[in-house]
Amino acid sequence: MREPILLTPGPLTTTLKTKTAMLSDWGSWDAAFNELTASVCADLLAIAHAQEDHVCVPLQGSGTFAVEAAIGTLLPRTGKLLVLVNGAYGKRMARAVEVMGRQVAILEFAENAPVDAAAVARRLAQEPAITHVGVIHCETSTGVLNPLADIARVVAAQGKRLIIDAMSSFGALDIDARELQFDALVASSNKCLEGVPGMGIIIARRAALVESLGNSHSLSMDLHDQYVYMQKTGQWRFTPPTHVVAALRAALDQYHAEGGQPGRLARYQANYQMLVTGLARLGLTPFLARDDQAPIIVTFHAPEHPDYDFRALYEAVRERGFVLYPGKLTEVETFRVGCIGAINEAEIGQAVAAIGEGLNQLGWL
Amino acid sequence: MREPILLTPGPLTTTLKTKTAMLSDWGSWDAAFNELTASVCADLLAIAHAQEDHVCVPLQGSGTFAVEAAIGTLLPRTGKLLVLVNGAYGKRMARAVEVMGRQVAILEFAENAPVDAAAVARRLAQEPAITHVGVIHCETSTGVLNPLADIARVVAAQGKRLIIDAMSSFGALDIDARELQFDALVASSNKCLEGVPGMGIIIARRAALVESLGNSHSLSMDLHDQYVYMQKTGQWRFTPPTHVVAALRAALDQYHAEGGQPGRLARYQANYQMLVTGLARLGLTPFLARDDQAPIIVTFHAPEHPDYDFRALYEAVRERGFVLYPGKLTEVETFRVGCIGAINEAEIGQAVAAIGEGLNQLGWL
Ligand SMILES: Cc1ncc(COP(=O)(O)O)c(C=O)c1O
Ligand SMILES: Cc1ncc(COP(=O)(O)O)c(C=O)c1O
Repeated sequence: MREPILLTPGPLTTTLKTKTAMLSDWGSWDAAFNELTASVCADLLAIAHAQEDHVCVPLQGSGTFAVEAAIGTLLPRTGKLLVLVNGAYGKRMARAVEVMGRQVAILEFAENAPVDAAAVARRLAQEPAITHVGVIHCETSTGVLNPLADIARVVAAQGKRLIIDAMSSFGALDIDARELQFDALVASSNKCLEGVPGMGIIIARRAALVESLGNSHSLSMDLHDQYVYMQKTGQWRFTPPTHVVAALRAALDQYHAEGGQPGRLARYQANYQMLVTGLARLGLTPFLARDDQAPIIVTFHAPEHPDYDFRALYEAVRERGFVLYPGKLTEVETFRVGCIGAINEAEIGQAVAAIGEGLNQLGWL
Repeated sequence: MREPILLTPGPLTTTLKTKTAMLSDWGSWDAAFNELTASVCADLLAIAHAQEDHVCVPLQGSGTFAVEAAIGTLLPRTGKLLVLVNGAYGKRMARAVEVMGRQVAILEFAENAPVDAAAVARRLAQEPAITHVGVIHCETSTGVLNPLADIARVVAAQGKRLIIDAMSSFGALDIDARELQFDALVASSNKCLEGVPGMGIIIARRAALVESLGNSHSLSMDLHDQYVYMQKTGQWRFTPPTHVVAALRAALDQYHAEGGQPGRLARYQANYQMLVTGLARLGLTPFLARDDQAPIIVTFHAPEHPDYDFRALYEAVRERGFVLYPGKLTEVETFRVGCIGAINEAEIGQAVAAIGEGLNQLGWL
């Protein structure tokens, strides 16, 4: 059988071209590898239009490591982070701050709606101890899109600093540092950039990073140290995931060939359209209102059948060549389907058919 | 030209079989990937003969992340770590403890000699506040082999706990948990196991790990949390470096086929022999006494020529297809050559020839 297609929000399906870029070994001290790192970082900065005031710091590990590193490095020990929570990744961000022993405040919103920027403004006015705000751009636990521009505006208006977890949006949704004020934008290799997992990406405002010496709670996650060392030597401080970096280089070449962010977004939007239309025909409806939804990952209400069990649906669809993603909501029974990765409408069409056949087999149609 | 052969202590040259294992995408929630993780962990435990009392916890990131995570998780907040330092990695371990804000003591030894276990015993007797001892098994900054069994004995005799950085020795040198008492043994995917970089390995004593709840200074590096979650779900807490794990699985299959640890060590010893003998003919002598040297990486005195410059030697040898490694000593001019990776005496012989030709071209022979 063909290898299953991953309808998951990363790790996701990558092209063979991206994967074959991993068939070389790279010396981590070698000029060729330093150039690879530099070219990847330059491209990542350009994607965010952030060449002017920002720098790109790559970090070993998964996306969570990069989020924690950004906060640990940029939030002063005496700072206080307000986390805007409307899903699991917001909660995780707050938890990371708690574990590192810094002050954190939480502003919670319903899981089925975007963060409300006006509420953020009110909270900031009430609680002057807050120095920084953390937000999840696309909250992958539901797929809800938060209004980044509005949030950035109220945060800047009150003289606070913004840390953005753009893990599942970076590369697909437009994020323009010339229009948006932020101290850090965090992403990873294995989502909309369609690389393989193993590397986090932090786009940090240079001035904020430069003044962050000594903030970090962790040697490994000290982005100031990572940045200074890389500036001096062109190298990562500790062993880089060389093959992952090479795969990301190849993925970025394909990203540019596709027309960059607008091209990528257009494909994902077409995937999204095909998915929602197709599953509607099977009686499956999205959890979110259309306007609140990013074309990245879609949460669907589970079929209304007393025997419904995600595991069984997962297996039935997997046998047909597609990997679904479980829901992450506690109160409503849901499952998720990703629109991202090296797939297009053809694969989404096949996936819809597979889900239909699976449901039919299980008697849940 | 053929891709250069890496004579570096990781990332190193891997086989094509190991790299082609990265040509699949894996769902991080899929049963097939959970089985991959479980089988890799089981093999790693078996290599250390640690199935009885220990567990294997994999961690995203480089080796330094895994060392920091082991200490952050296993050293109580009120604990004190004595780090045995005879090189850069010992210093880095101490620095990691400092940054996380716990108590650290340093016992420093000369860089050209192994740690002296008797001195460790004396220090432990003098300073009862010390609860844990950290040691580098093979100090890669010179290649010196520290007497792990002797050190473990004095640490256990005084009721202290041992954390071993076995990054550059694990898999090649014999480490037997049935004979050696330790709370954590830390390694990585990309050294003597000959996988690709991107994953740390912690073999932790189960009882110590179980009682470590709440110690960690970092959410991402909390091995207790990682372990509990993995026990419950079979999954990594955060996105795993799926391709790196798949490559390690393939690398472990080849490790077993080579005869496991004894087979791997025999090849490295032959490489070492060939290297030292060959470079001796060029007038290049090792920095360490033979008995203090592990067959992993060898530090050589630089050629005695007033114009000597590592960069130039590096380039001359690289043009001939081999990547050398710089020295890490501040007082003596040295360079390093790794004996590890998917290479054997044939490649080492070619490398010796390339170094000879390079030196000749530079007029430093
Ligand atoms: C919005 C968001 N933040 C953080 C993460 C965490 O990333 P990782 O799983 O790579 O640690 C994810 C991963 O899905 C995510 O979607
Ligand atoms: C003994 C030792 N400890 C720690 C490390 C750090 O590992 P990494 O570079 O993967 O962070 C190394 C890497 O060479 C090492 O040899």
